[in-house]
Amino acid sequence: MTGHARAPIKITLGHFTLMETADLGHHISRRYNDDLDRLRTRVLAMGGFVEQQLQKAVRALVDGDSALGEAVAMDDYKVNDMEISIDEDCSRLLAIRAPTAGDLRVILAIIKTITDLERIGDEAEKVGYIASRLATMERPADKYHEIKHLGRVVAEMVHDALDAYARMDADAAVDVARRDRLVDEEYEAIQRQCITFMMEDARTIRRTLDLLWVVRALERIGDHAKNICEYVIYMVHGKDVRHTSLDDVQRELHARQESPPAPAATPPIQ
Amino acid sequence: MTGHARAPIKITLGHFTLMETADLGHHISRRYNDDLDRLRTRVLAMGGFVEQQLQKAVRALVDGDSALGEAVAMDDYKVNDMEISIDEDCSRLLAIRAPTAGDLRVILAIIKTITDLERIGDEAEKVGYIASRLATMERPADKYHEIKHLGRVVAEMVHDALDAYARMDADAAVDVARRDRLVDEEYEAIQRQCITFMMEDARTIRRTLDLLWVVRALERIGDHAKNICEYVIYMVHGKDVRHTSLDDVQRELHARQESPPAPAATPPIQ
Repeated sequence: MTGHARAPIKITLGHFTLMETADLGHHISRRYNDDLDRLRTRVLAMGGFVEQQLQKAVRALVDGDSALGEAVAMDDYKVNDMEISIDEDCSRLLAIRAPTAGDLRVILAIIKTITDLERIGDEAEKVGYIASRLATMERPADKYHEIKHLGRVVAEMVHDALDAYARMDADAAVDVARRDRLVDEEYEAIQRQCITFMMEDARTIRRTLDLLWVVRALERIGDHAKNICEYVIYMVHGKDVRHTSLDDVQRELHARQESPPAPAATPPIQ
Repeated sequence: MTGHARAPIKITLGHFTLMETADLGHHISRRYNDDLDRLRTRVLAMGGFVEQQLQKAVRALVDGDSALGEAVAMDDYKVNDMEISIDEDCSRLLAIRAPTAGDLRVILAIIKTITDLERIGDEAEKVGYIASRLATMERPADKYHEIKHLGRVVAEMVHDALDAYARMDADAAVDVARRDRLVDEEYEAIQRQCITFMMEDARTIRRTLDLLWVVRALERIGDHAKNICEYVIYMVHGKDVRHTSLDDVQRELHARQESPPAPAATPPIQ
């Protein structure tokens, strides 16, 4: 893409930096760019809120903070409201601007991304509920340590997926998506420990099952973060990489970087 | 909506009847109607395949048929391929036809519906894997009986959600969505039984956990079927009813039926 030599304009939102997508020669109007940037900023705001919900839910469990767990569950409606509102704006923008190619992909990627963010919110809500239920019980320090670690890993995945989204960085998205395998391995390991624990002492079965649901929720959050990474790759490169191995994706992205980029995309300004 | 007195044309696909959405005075072209109907037919074909996958997976578990369980898991790639292919056609149609109002909603509803169908496919795949693993073990007849029943209930939900989609019948969609509560109750009851079973005999913990994952997968399939019902309501009435109580939705739909319908929708021809 030539003729775009000016420096990228960056919009800072909390701890995310939004790479401006404007390609003025390509877009219908400056107004459309503003609409798109506003939408993407709102996705990041929703993502930031969901990330906080997740962190709070795990902290509620680890600290045995019943009120915090309940607060997370009570706040899930805010995530739902954000999803519906952004979704409506996407429909409106599709109807009035009739975007094509890269601009269309940006909006379709948003529609999918907010669905995954909403589901991450649902999983955080579940963790919040369980945390408030378990708060009154005695906490086995060792197991929560591992859940705390897994919680940190998936929260980082969500954060870094949103960061790759903000910067429209497909390579970073591939790197984040790769971490999902580690999440799965950690989940399997904790699950095995939980089973051993239940077999050793049947009185712990109920509580341990609750913990199993928590680690399952965290594992699913990793899946959703991976989905978001796949939308970033789709948005930037116009290729749907769901159900494709990450090695194949990376090979293809590098092959593309060595050949001229596809004209249809709306890449960040170089 | 006046001036549409001719009888609806019905397209029959397997056991679904597709209500033709054509509103020729409203659409850009006959070609566009054909494109939309073809897309909707493909969604129903995907739905029919996913429904079969679910039924086979549950049968594999109940009959202890390891080969059938494996076959379900092996065939999941077909569901993924259908999702990507339909998704691409939706993008293409959005780009070349730039639909608005009801026509836009039909396509956005398809994009969301196939995501849920794909996830139902994933859950069926999991059940298939677990079924093939459990096939060699002794089967406790009583518990599989209840899983068989729950499997039938959610398969019917998926079928009836797709039927409501085919007929663009928002009232039927509300009825199907309501059944999700029964699924949740049945899931909770089986879960309690499983816990009792594990507490009584620690040697059954591993196998019972596998069954817990199966009923959890079935419960999630109910959620996905409910999501599809919500897209039907959105498609027909232009209202996003996710995160709204079904009683409120039904009240509003009935209030609308007593007042003139919104002009923006593309309802089935009366």
